[in-house]
Amino acid sequence: MPFVNRLSMPAAALLALCFAVPAATARPAAPVVNTNITEAEVLAAQQAWGDALVSISRDNEAGGLERARATASAVLDGAYGYNMGPVLFKPTLTQAPQTFRTTRDGALAYFVGGDKAYPSDTGFALKGWRKVEVKNEGVHIHGDVAMTMGNVTLTDKDGKRTTVDKTWAYKKDDAGKLRIVLHHSSLPYSAK
Amino acid sequence: MPFVNRLSMPAAALLALCFAVPAATARPAAPVVNTNITEAEVLAAQQAWGDALVSISRDNEAGGLERARATASAVLDGAYGYNMGPVLFKPTLTQAPQTFRTTRDGALAYFVGGDKAYPSDTGFALKGWRKVEVKNEGVHIHGDVAMTMGNVTLTDKDGKRTTVDKTWAYKKDDAGKLRIVLHHSSLPYSAK
Amino acid sequence: MPFVNRLSMPAAALLALCFAVPAATARPAAPVVNTNITEAEVLAAQQAWGDALVSISRDNEAGGLERARATASAVLDGAYGYNMGPVLFKPTLTQAPQTFRTTRDGALAYFVGGDKAYPSDTGFALKGWRKVEVKNEGVHIHGDVAMTMGNVTLTDKDGKRTTVDKTWAYKKDDAGKLRIVLHHSSLPYSAK
Amino acid sequence: MPFVNRLSMPAAALLALCFAVPAATARPAAPVVNTNITEAEVLAAQQAWGDALVSISRDNEAGGLERARATASAVLDGAYGYNMGPVLFKPTLTQAPQTFRTTRDGALAYFVGGDKAYPSDTGFALKGWRKVEVKNEGVHIHGDVAMTMGNVTLTDKDGKRTTVDKTWAYKKDDAGKLRIVLHHSSLPYSAK
Repeated sequence: MPFVNRLSMPAAALLALCFAVPAATARPAAPVVNTNITEAEVLAAQQAWGDALVSISRDNEAGGLERARATASAVLDGAYGYNMGPVLFKPTLTQAPQTFRTTRDGALAYFVGGDKAYPSDTGFALKGWRKVEVKNEGVHIHGDVAMTMGNVTLTDKDGKRTTVDKTWAYKKDDAGKLRIVLHHSSLPYSAK
Repeated sequence: MPFVNRLSMPAAALLALCFAVPAATARPAAPVVNTNITEAEVLAAQQAWGDALVSISRDNEAGGLERARATASAVLDGAYGYNMGPVLFKPTLTQAPQTFRTTRDGALAYFVGGDKAYPSDTGFALKGWRKVEVKNEGVHIHGDVAMTMGNVTLTDKDGKRTTVDKTWAYKKDDAGKLRIVLHHSSLPYSAK
Repeated sequence: MPFVNRLSMPAAALLALCFAVPAATARPAAPVVNTNITEAEVLAAQQAWGDALVSISRDNEAGGLERARATASAVLDGAYGYNMGPVLFKPTLTQAPQTFRTTRDGALAYFVGGDKAYPSDTGFALKGWRKVEVKNEGVHIHGDVAMTMGNVTLTDKDGKRTTVDKTWAYKKDDAGKLRIVLHHSSLPYSAK
Repeated sequence: MPFVNRLSMPAAALLALCFAVPAATARPAAPVVNTNITEAEVLAAQQAWGDALVSISRDNEAGGLERARATASAVLDGAYGYNMGPVLFKPTLTQAPQTFRTTRDGALAYFVGGDKAYPSDTGFALKGWRKVEVKNEGVHIHGDVAMTMGNVTLTDKDGKRTTVDKTWAYKKDDAGKLRIVLHHSSLPYSAK
């Protein structure tokens, strides 16, 4: 019962704990089933995405492409919503006619390359990433759906930094896990 | 902009304030638009319903039926969702063919009586209520919809207590206000 | 991918099929992931509940209590939301202190009895039910949550009819199945 | 009561009309309050966005900047969600430190320019647009939130076509209107 929170602690209760204010009522709280996404869950999902990208890079260096591919597969299965249907995914470096990667195969090809069906893909996650920083400009949370927009800065093993404009949308599944259902990444516009 | 929370304080931040743990990051949080219902809002809406019922009773005693009707009208407009369409309302003491009060007129007649179109209604809110206690058995929160079930105990001016089985569902509107969209109240079953 | 609808047929498309109006565009529709509940799904879930109640009665008559209990267990696992946490269930004929059946065990005891922990339960689903008719007064649909209120009339093998006031709320799960998360049933109020 | 649909016509009912199949039941349908977004509403909102862009261009040519600005203001107030708080808006041609336009002022400056606070903005909507074509790769609908991703191709008065990668998210408000709460637009990536 992942959503059940018998002892939920709102902010007031936490402050009460700090300052020893007695509880207003002795009656135990009723159990609550709450399927909403919290801001903390959104931030954790973003951090997990960055950690996963670095993991794929490190696994590639330590164990080769097969190990990187296995890690990337696990990331796609665990953190994306391909199990629900098409994911609205526009990666940073894709081009027509393969700009959008609404299938799991297309996403895996983008991250680790090596798929003849996607000949332009060289493996975005194999670029020696070491650090991922997320700076949100804003967050929307509507029930079990959340959306974020902002910059993501990636640092590689040589210290080179790349910043992209990034939009993510998440949906919480029945197990309480946030899954990416939309991901639009683009290089910053630069006036000629 | 009722939902904007530029300085949202998650539980960890509150504890940090208490114990002077330094913040992990100096970057200010991104603004968050969050349309979800919280447990605290549900409990506040239940308390407000009870307070409103007592207010109608007291206004009837102090100012007569017209004043009670004005208060009841304001409660229906402010706390129920008749502005969205039919409300799923089964009051405690109604009978066929007028059991369900999906219209504002039907609800007003139930609370304060005096409507020839609802000849059986004597005004449930006019019974001298003094106290309303809500005991939830469980709460469900799904986005901007919340549902509760439990007992409500009403005490009148003579100290007589009445307990009913009560279900409410709320929807949060664009202004951030919870509105009752479903209300099923029934006297406890008693085996003959 | 239960929610994927590559060939969704809106009303206009259906009418076009009927009258051979040419499509406005040759471009195939984009795939749609839609987690919302439809009115048709709500009506089907209500019908399924009635069919299940009759099945338990018939299985009891044909195969005895064990078979009825097995059927009731399957109904609870397939059509109720006990897998998510507490279900807000107030059956028609329960009394304090066991009025609410927020656990699967409590619900099973109500339907088929025979549980020493619920000594008042005689098995509501064993009463020889033959027909269940649902008459909704109104329906609310908000995303993957739907709520209904109205009358349900049950007819037993002797033709005796019982009408109850009934509220249901459903939540659609990741597999696309509607599950009852709230169920308030009560005998009609009768003025003394 | 914008969401009330007393005479909702599901697909089966439409087919019945075509083929004169008698209704299964004479009982009138219960009123339905449904706050969900439909695919048709999403497509209509996309079309309206394109029409609005062309209108601003034409108003600029026929009535000058003030008229264009008035039209753009009306579009922002009617079709975007700035009334709810920050909108997650990354326009096609903006650059740091003014990449994101989470405020109404920032969005208006992008569309019609002439705001000293946004010195790089020359008015994207003033570029003589004549036609807007939307090609979705996929659509997600979750309650009163919908998301789309795909290409948008803009044609100007000289017949020059510009294609962008476009993500939109909409939220339906209490009046039943879809509002853009997220908009990420980017020029296609091009390998050097």
